[in-house]
Amino acid sequence: MSDGPTFDEPFRAHLLELFQWRRDVRRFAGKQVSDKLLDDLIAQAVLAPSVGNSQPWRFVKVADPGRRKKIIEDFQICNQEALDNYHGEQAQIYASLKLSGLRDAPAHLAVFADIETSVGHGLGQRTMPETLKYSVVGAINHLWLVARAHGVGVGWVSILNPDNVGNILDVPQGWSLIAYLCVGYPEEEHLDPELVRANWQQRLDVSKLILER
Amino acid sequence: MSDGPTFDEPFRAHLLELFQWRRDVRRFAGKQVSDKLLDDLIAQAVLAPSVGNSQPWRFVKVADPGRRKKIIEDFQICNQEALDNYHGEQAQIYASLKLSGLRDAPAHLAVFADIETSVGHGLGQRTMPETLKYSVVGAINHLWLVARAHGVGVGWVSILNPDNVGNILDVPQGWSLIAYLCVGYPEEEHLDPELVRANWQQRLDVSKLILER
Repeated sequence: MSDGPTFDEPFRAHLLELFQWRRDVRRFAGKQVSDKLLDDLIAQAVLAPSVGNSQPWRFVKVADPGRRKKIIEDFQICNQEALDNYHGEQAQIYASLKLSGLRDAPAHLAVFADIETSVGHGLGQRTMPETLKYSVVGAINHLWLVARAHGVGVGWVSILNPDNVGNILDVPQGWSLIAYLCVGYPEEEHLDPELVRANWQQRLDVSKLILER
Repeated sequence: MSDGPTFDEPFRAHLLELFQWRRDVRRFAGKQVSDKLLDDLIAQAVLAPSVGNSQPWRFVKVADPGRRKKIIEDFQICNQEALDNYHGEQAQIYASLKLSGLRDAPAHLAVFADIETSVGHGLGQRTMPETLKYSVVGAINHLWLVARAHGVGVGWVSILNPDNVGNILDVPQGWSLIAYLCVGYPEEEHLDPELVRANWQQRLDVSKLILER
């Protein structure tokens, strides 16, 4: 047992600012992200909690142009199928949205959960096995925040067929795709989400999302 | 488009310290967590990203002693079933672990995903519908970090039957339990996870969890 650090109000104000200015970034400037920085981001990501300390996060740095091209093709197919399901004005807005920065992002990082891991010995997963995947999501959110603290933007692309991504990246059996991340320096900074600016979906009043029991 | 804030090295060092000292807390001191602080934590949690800006997070503050008692009973049943599946030394360690602070935590917060929400119009969920639940996990990780920045500990209890929790808390149909959180001031501060100290599971070398493709 130790005395932990205390955090003061100026730090908390900056943390709030970090939360407020962390965006899903789809427009990247040309500047490269160093491999050292990417490793630093991953090292801080894995300080996230994981169920039973199972640490099921697995990271794949995708640099090969051929593999990236196949990922982009998969995105295009999935995005067209999604568009076909919207109609009228909603289809028009959807078609105008920029939903990924796959072409311009200097770094691609795929993040998987190893659902066959024995690390953690199953603790905490018996009634809620999905917490294994949730642990990986926590690591991704850590990475997102620390990236922004370095001025680096992250975009989470979910308009992909997860099995195809696993095949394209030739990952071990039992690895389940959680997120495909575009990483790079943003072309623009915004306080509001792109989907708010594009009139796709406004923010909700949080007080209406809380019940008391 | 605006100029966003920049974050400096001292801030990043504090952020790393926050990540390092955020623990899954199961031992709570008696001090109450004010309702105002709990609301502030929730307000910052929902600055997390969500797929299609769907904001599917739903929060339930659980104060009623009768409902808390039923939650604790559900935990006890699930925990006994989990213990029955371990043998030998592992069973001994498991039995000695303190896996929840449900009895002592001054605040209980259940967090659900509204899987029937139309907010966000399904964007990004077609091929990976699980991203709706992942969005709620991100909000929980935000809450966890900002709580620690206030000196408040959070413990995520997953040793529960999620359907039972929904029934005990009488939440709307379509709400799916993501996490049941114990919130309060910690009795102890630690740099290492309790499961490491108890010899349940050590930390992995992150460099072995990264592939290049």
